[in-house]
Amino acid sequence: MAPRRSLTRPARLGPLTIGGGAPVVVQTMGNADPLDPEAILAQIGRLTARGAELVRLAVPNEAAARVLAEVTPHSPVPLVADVHFDWRLALWSLKAKAAGLRLNPGNIRDPEKIKKVAEAAMANGAAIRVGVNAGSLDPEVLARYGHTPEAMVQSALKEIAVLEAVGFTNIVVSLKASEVRLTVEAARLMARRSDYPQHLGVTEAGDLESGVVKSAVGLGLLLYEGLGDTIRVSLTGPPEAEVDCAYEILKSLGLRVRGPEYISCPTCGRCRIDLAALLRDVKERLSDLKTPLKIAVMGCEVNGPGEAKRADLGVAGGQRKGVVFEKGLVVGQYPFESLAAVLEDKARVLAGEPKTIP
Amino acid sequence: MAPRRSLTRPARLGPLTIGGGAPVVVQTMGNADPLDPEAILAQIGRLTARGAELVRLAVPNEAAARVLAEVTPHSPVPLVADVHFDWRLALWSLKAKAAGLRLNPGNIRDPEKIKKVAEAAMANGAAIRVGVNAGSLDPEVLARYGHTPEAMVQSALKEIAVLEAVGFTNIVVSLKASEVRLTVEAARLMARRSDYPQHLGVTEAGDLESGVVKSAVGLGLLLYEGLGDTIRVSLTGPPEAEVDCAYEILKSLGLRVRGPEYISCPTCGRCRIDLAALLRDVKERLSDLKTPLKIAVMGCEVNGPGEAKRADLGVAGGQRKGVVFEKGLVVGQYPFESLAAVLEDKARVLAGEPKTIP
Repeated sequence: MAPRRSLTRPARLGPLTIGGGAPVVVQTMGNADPLDPEAILAQIGRLTARGAELVRLAVPNEAAARVLAEVTPHSPVPLVADVHFDWRLALWSLKAKAAGLRLNPGNIRDPEKIKKVAEAAMANGAAIRVGVNAGSLDPEVLARYGHTPEAMVQSALKEIAVLEAVGFTNIVVSLKASEVRLTVEAARLMARRSDYPQHLGVTEAGDLESGVVKSAVGLGLLLYEGLGDTIRVSLTGPPEAEVDCAYEILKSLGLRVRGPEYISCPTCGRCRIDLAALLRDVKERLSDLKTPLKIAVMGCEVNGPGEAKRADLGVAGGQRKGVVFEKGLVVGQYPFESLAAVLEDKARVLAGEPKTIP
Repeated sequence: MAPRRSLTRPARLGPLTIGGGAPVVVQTMGNADPLDPEAILAQIGRLTARGAELVRLAVPNEAAARVLAEVTPHSPVPLVADVHFDWRLALWSLKAKAAGLRLNPGNIRDPEKIKKVAEAAMANGAAIRVGVNAGSLDPEVLARYGHTPEAMVQSALKEIAVLEAVGFTNIVVSLKASEVRLTVEAARLMARRSDYPQHLGVTEAGDLESGVVKSAVGLGLLLYEGLGDTIRVSLTGPPEAEVDCAYEILKSLGLRVRGPEYISCPTCGRCRIDLAALLRDVKERLSDLKTPLKIAVMGCEVNGPGEAKRADLGVAGGQRKGVVFEKGLVVGQYPFESLAAVLEDKARVLAGEPKTIP
C-alpha cells in the first residue's frame, strides 16, 4: 500500500545507497560545536540510536575539517561535510574521510574549483550532494529566472554538468526552499529533467509547530508521488526531533516502518476514560519496540471497535474500562488502571520483544 | 501562489458558507462534558479565540441535546451536533438549534429515518454532513467493497441519494480514515463523483507527534490539489492544538493567513546565537498579532541574509549579535539580548498593531 517510487540511479555513501530503489534514507544534521569532537560523536550516537542513517556536519573552517578527521573513524553512520563559500573546505573534508560532501552551487561557483573537488571526491569514493537553496541562489541564475523552480533546477543542472564533465556521477541533488510550494514544484521539475536521486527537505521550516507541518505537507506530498530518495526534516529544535518527524512522515505513507504505529481518537463528549494519559503511558512503555505494530487506542463505541479490530492490538474505551482486541478478536475487558500494562504485555508478545529488566 | 481550488457547491451553516469558493473553514470538536453547558461554552470561547470557525459537539443522549439548547444561543460560531446510532438525537439537536448535523451513514441506516431528519433539517435551515468513517462503515457496503475508497464513496453516495430524494442538498461530505492513503484516495474519488463540498480529516490520527504529521501529509496533499472546503485536524490532545495545526497547514500552502509566518533555520555548527530561544521569545511577544507577516529568524550568513531579505522582517545571526532586515534592506545590527525586542517593535509597526498595555 506504500506509494510506488520513481526509479532514480543509485548514489553510494560508504555502505549506504541513496536512490536506485533503496528505502528512503533518513538523515539529519548535527549542531554540536564543530571544534568539539566528543560533543559531535555523542550527538551522532544519540541521532543514530534514534534512527538517523546519515548525519551531516557543518565544516565552516579548516580547524573543523581537522576535527572531522577525528570524528569519521568513530561514527557508526556515514558523515556528510556541509561546505560553503570556500572550496578548499571540501578538499579538507575529503581528506578527513567524509563519505559525502554537500556543495552549495550558490556560493562555490568557479567550475575549475568544482572540478578539482569532484576529482578528489572520485578518488575517495565520496558522493556529492548538489544542494541548491532558494535562500542562497547563484546570483546569475537568480537574475535570469528569479525565485522560481526553474532557477533552482537550472542552478543544479549547471553544477551537475560541471561534475559530469570530469566523469563524476555519484550525485544526489536537493532543491530546498522555505516555501512548501517552491520546494514541491522544484522537486517535480527536477525529476522530469534528471534521474539523479533526490534529497528532499523544506528548509528553514520553523520550530516544532510550524516546521513539522511544513515538512510533512511538502515532503509527504512528494513522497506520495514517488519522489525522494532521502529526506531531512529541518526544525529549529533538537535534531532528534527531526529524525522522529522524518519517520512519522515515512510511516504515515507506509514507506518505512519502525516500531508501533498508534491510531488514537481525539476524544469527544463521549469519551469516559483519560485517553491521552493512556496513550502516553502505552507509548512510553513501548518506546523501545522496533517491530512494526498497529495499536489502536480509542475512546468509545463509535469508531473504537472498528479501528481496534483492524489494528494488531486495540482498546475501545467504556465507562472507566476498556475492551481489548487482538488481531480482530475481543480478548478481554479490563479496568482503566490496568489497560496500559495489558497492552504493553500483549504488544511485547506479538512483537517477540520481551521487557528488558534493567 | 495558493493552490487553485476545485469549485464545489456551497453549503450554509448559519452565517458560514462551506464550499462554493469560500475560504477553507477551520473547525474542531469540543470534548467537554456534554451535560455541562458552562464548560462547553467556556471551551467554545477558547476555541473561537484561537480561530475555530465551526465547533462540533457530541450529542450522545437526549440530556445532551437539552444542554445543547442552552449552549447554541450563546455560541459565537455555528455548532454542529455529532449524532450516531439514534436518529432521534438528530431531531432533538435540530430543536436545540444546531446549525448542522453530522450523520454517520454507518450507524444510522434506515432511509425513512434519514428522510425525516432531512425534512426537519430543511425546515430549520440546517446543513447535514454525511460523515463516513472507515472505522464504522455500513456493514452492507463493507461486505461488498471492503475497506476501500470505493466503499467509503458508495456509503456517502447512498446517503446523499436518500437526502436528495426529499430535496435536501445543504450537504457537506467527509470520508475519513485513520490511514493517510485511504483518506486521500477516498477524497479524490469523491471529488470525481460529486461536487458537494468536502470536509477533510484524517481520523484518529494520533497524538501531537504522529497526529500532526498524518494530518499535515493527508490534508496538505488534498488541499494542494485544490480539494477540501473545511478541515478538521483530529488529535489526541487539547482541541486548541487542532485549530493551531489546521492553520499551520493552511498557512504552509498560502490558503489562509493569520498572524506571522516564521522562517527559521535548524541551526548547525555555524550558529553562534541561541536561535531557538530567540524564536520562542519573538513568537511569544507576537502571539496576539493578527496581520500576516513573514518573519525570518536565521542563525548564520549562509542562507540568513537571503531569507531575511525576502521576508517582511528578518534577522541573520552572527557572533552574539544579529543583522536586522526590513523589507529587503539592512536596518541595523543589534546585540543578541535586544534582538527579540527590536523584532517585536518593528513587527508591530509593520502590522499597525501596537502593544496593548494591560
